[in-house]
Amino acid sequence: MPLWLRLYRRPLLAGDLTAGVVVAMMMIPQGMAYALVAGLPPVAGIYASILPPVLYALFGSSMTQSVGPMAIVSLMTAAALAPLADPGSALYVTLAAQLALISGALLLLCGVLRLGFLAGFLSRPVISGFSNGAAIVIVVGQVPALLGARPPQWHAPSALLGLGSLLLLWLAKRYGGALLRRCGCGAAAAETGARMAPMLLVLGATALVAALDLAGAGVHTTGHVPSGLPSLGLVASAGHWRALLSPALLIAFIVFLMSMSAAQTLAHKRGEKLLTNRELLGLGAANLASAVSGGFPVTGSMSRSAVNFSAGANTPLASVVTAALLALALVAPTGWLALLPLPVLAATIVFAVAGMLDMATLRQAWRYDRSDALALLATTAGVLLLGVEAGVVIGVLLSMGALIWRASRPHIAVLGRIAGSEHFRNIERYAGETLPAILVLRVDAGLFFGNVDAVGARIDEEVRARPDTRALVLVLSAVNQIDTTALSGLQEWNRGLAARGVALHLAEVKGPVMDRLKHSTLLQELSGPVYLSTALACDDLARRAPPLHGRAQGGALP
Amino acid sequence: MPLWLRLYRRPLLAGDLTAGVVVAMMMIPQGMAYALVAGLPPVAGIYASILPPVLYALFGSSMTQSVGPMAIVSLMTAAALAPLADPGSALYVTLAAQLALISGALLLLCGVLRLGFLAGFLSRPVISGFSNGAAIVIVVGQVPALLGARPPQWHAPSALLGLGSLLLLWLAKRYGGALLRRCGCGAAAAETGARMAPMLLVLGATALVAALDLAGAGVHTTGHVPSGLPSLGLVASAGHWRALLSPALLIAFIVFLMSMSAAQTLAHKRGEKLLTNRELLGLGAANLASAVSGGFPVTGSMSRSAVNFSAGANTPLASVVTAALLALALVAPTGWLALLPLPVLAATIVFAVAGMLDMATLRQAWRYDRSDALALLATTAGVLLLGVEAGVVIGVLLSMGALIWRASRPHIAVLGRIAGSEHFRNIERYAGETLPAILVLRVDAGLFFGNVDAVGARIDEEVRARPDTRALVLVLSAVNQIDTTALSGLQEWNRGLAARGVALHLAEVKGPVMDRLKHSTLLQELSGPVYLSTALACDDLARRAPPLHGRAQGGALP
Repeated sequence: MPLWLRLYRRPLLAGDLTAGVVVAMMMIPQGMAYALVAGLPPVAGIYASILPPVLYALFGSSMTQSVGPMAIVSLMTAAALAPLADPGSALYVTLAAQLALISGALLLLCGVLRLGFLAGFLSRPVISGFSNGAAIVIVVGQVPALLGARPPQWHAPSALLGLGSLLLLWLAKRYGGALLRRCGCGAAAAETGARMAPMLLVLGATALVAALDLAGAGVHTTGHVPSGLPSLGLVASAGHWRALLSPALLIAFIVFLMSMSAAQTLAHKRGEKLLTNRELLGLGAANLASAVSGGFPVTGSMSRSAVNFSAGANTPLASVVTAALLALALVAPTGWLALLPLPVLAATIVFAVAGMLDMATLRQAWRYDRSDALALLATTAGVLLLGVEAGVVIGVLLSMGALIWRASRPHIAVLGRIAGSEHFRNIERYAGETLPAILVLRVDAGLFFGNVDAVGARIDEEVRARPDTRALVLVLSAVNQIDTTALSGLQEWNRGLAARGVALHLAEVKGPVMDRLKHSTLLQELSGPVYLSTALACDDLARRAPPLHGRAQGGALP
Repeated sequence: MPLWLRLYRRPLLAGDLTAGVVVAMMMIPQGMAYALVAGLPPVAGIYASILPPVLYALFGSSMTQSVGPMAIVSLMTAAALAPLADPGSALYVTLAAQLALISGALLLLCGVLRLGFLAGFLSRPVISGFSNGAAIVIVVGQVPALLGARPPQWHAPSALLGLGSLLLLWLAKRYGGALLRRCGCGAAAAETGARMAPMLLVLGATALVAALDLAGAGVHTTGHVPSGLPSLGLVASAGHWRALLSPALLIAFIVFLMSMSAAQTLAHKRGEKLLTNRELLGLGAANLASAVSGGFPVTGSMSRSAVNFSAGANTPLASVVTAALLALALVAPTGWLALLPLPVLAATIVFAVAGMLDMATLRQAWRYDRSDALALLATTAGVLLLGVEAGVVIGVLLSMGALIWRASRPHIAVLGRIAGSEHFRNIERYAGETLPAILVLRVDAGLFFGNVDAVGARIDEEVRARPDTRALVLVLSAVNQIDTTALSGLQEWNRGLAARGVALHLAEVKGPVMDRLKHSTLLQELSGPVYLSTALACDDLARRAPPLHGRAQGGALP
């Protein structure tokens, strides 16, 4: 039993019930709309909104996350399946579930292996650039449904319904809250009430289609929506496992990333703590549940979770309430849904997704760090020009490039002794005393393959700049780890420096690092002891040093 | 004109001439053998050894690197072309050159964009694991040529030639040097002389085939080797640009990696300095030259460069001499080469590549850092089970995972004041005085997307552990950069801490970081000034602080 359920107290119930109902009202049109984005029949969106949030409630760690269909993940689903099957075909539906299955299994695997730190793969500007690109692709993709025909053509009744809906949604967002407040609603209730606009719009539009027989006039509708709960079970296409693996990997990554950024924003607001690896388990379980109940890949949605949060959700019970209401909706007669006009659903998609467009991050990055802004724009351009999957890869590559670039520039300080003390500080910042024969360098980063070349180059530079150097003391007080590549580096530096008449010494090596080094041959290769402190090293070396002019000449070539 | 040529002095000539001749003798059998590994006619290997080293001599930065065909890159060429054309076909030859063209263009592009730091993408154990896997694949691939038939069958005369050659090569390596020394050679000359064994073997075996008509007995030979220099010009298949792009990217990466590790080892020995981005330009130019002269992807070879080095090469002139000799060999009658027995060439490949197997790194890593050893083995397994291209990708992913993991664990210290001073030091290592209401944290790494979550979590943890905290001073003395993601993080921490009654303050912010921050809204959002020193911050906060019990209560949920 999850912790929140064991600790559940009566006073939390009211908030959870309200939020559950509110989110259910939001979820019905949204689920159907995002199923359409994924190229699936609308009912699949409802299926994907029942079991997944319940499983997430059992295994996830966020109190207010709402798991279900989400625009960007639906777009990626469509991109993954497009080369493999025709939208609407039975194979397509099977492959969508299979994609959720593989993504879910990958997420679970990452959770078990505690790979949550991989969320650090992408910087925030890159995530923003990716979301913006995906939002534009989705909006452009909905234009034909919105107009009832592929532009430049359009079908007048459909276009009227679609564009009219957009206008109504905009009005509801702009003035709905104020109107409700004037009618006596509290501020929070008014805000929440305004969020019901898509559901009311869908109900109204469906009634309009029925009343005016707009379907007869050529307005496309969702058509027959099967009644009843989804049948449980797994249908998979044996021939497609391999083809689905790499899109599933990208989808799992984006599922995790989108869910984490939504959950984190809300957790910050209430001082809650998210457990990254638990999130992976929760999302993995949710996707497996989606796979066995006729759904497709799901994730936490920022917009829906924010509604859940502001409608008063205290625990994941709110999501369970939502799921129960959606199940009820399927058990109730669904015949009326057949007349739901697609232009109106397209309008809800366009409106919701346009709201995801984030210009603030671009503006901030442009002013603050131009390279971050360029990474953002490059990722957006990648999504628009090369597709959503290539966009993820470009984002990862840009972020990784930045990571390596940063790792390859560790902070290294030349130290000098503060007069009359045993303290050694950076001579760029303090008036420290140095000896011509003894160079003291402090490396302020763990030594590993990503910075070992840079550190070696810096050592080389500092030694060349001080031709009188006979001893180099590396102060490792800030070095928490030395990996195998860096160990080889230390051995090479030791040999290279010795050939130039400079002895390498280590000082202030941390306990765990020292334990490791004892398993290598480095300590025997060094010409002196490992010193406990920099002061001890310098005193000892100053005592031992032969006269300056006796040193071996270096072997550097022109 | 390159620097080495402008500074060229007469005394360097003898060494360069000797090394040039020695390497040419090594290059003829090796070039033909590695062309066979790539699935190409042997003469392509000679073509790829003429112009590329000359271009590298003009643009590269290593003094002793020998650029030309190399086993692993040939294997990758074969893997890239296998799905696209039949080995030996005209299309195959065209695509091999096209692959060199794209790889060369990518290398040049990386050089112009100064992306040399990307070599840090792979850790040394992962490179070793990749090389080992590739070596095993190459050896296994040569077994049919060695035996003259696909095992379990074998062709007796071929197998005798092949296995006999292996034995001779082993004897030459084991005893050749000692024998030559006993005959009066100097140590260096003897070592170099022993390296001529493959060439002598090839000459002897060819003579044997001619004398005994072994070709008539069913021993496969290289067949007609066209005489004359390669014709210059570019033939490309318009339909294959896209298919070649991703293998070319992997090949360019491995070309750079293999060349750098060879050049670096030798540069270390003589205290020379390599210019990473110049290496990219040199290798890019070499591959373009290979593409327009009937070759295939080339790189610096560790084994050949080591021979060049120990045979006395002082400058890239040695490589130019080698190239000139190979060109001469092509202009001279090449009829005799037609009888060169393939089992003997296979033996030279197996012998050379088996020598590349590196168990020392595995042994060292296993003792020193088990996770590095596992990464090495996983990369080898990836190459063996999934192929050489997947092996590169696995290696990059493993290295990147390690990089992110390390980046996500920055060193953070709680500081205390050294009694009676203005120094603040890590309280885990020094007896520092702390105040209950003021928490002082020093972050020893630049703040960026890869560690911002980890730093946030650590701040949260430290503040929770000290519920009396009213002010948090972040000491940024070691923070060289704050990227856009980290800026957002600081803003979120500031808001989150304020909601819990804790004021966030910054101290010792570096000049360039401060300049950036002035372009953001962070400084206005903070509740106090940015302090020049930690001591000033603590003195000021201790003075300003309201009584402890007056602080606002935190809003943390259960």
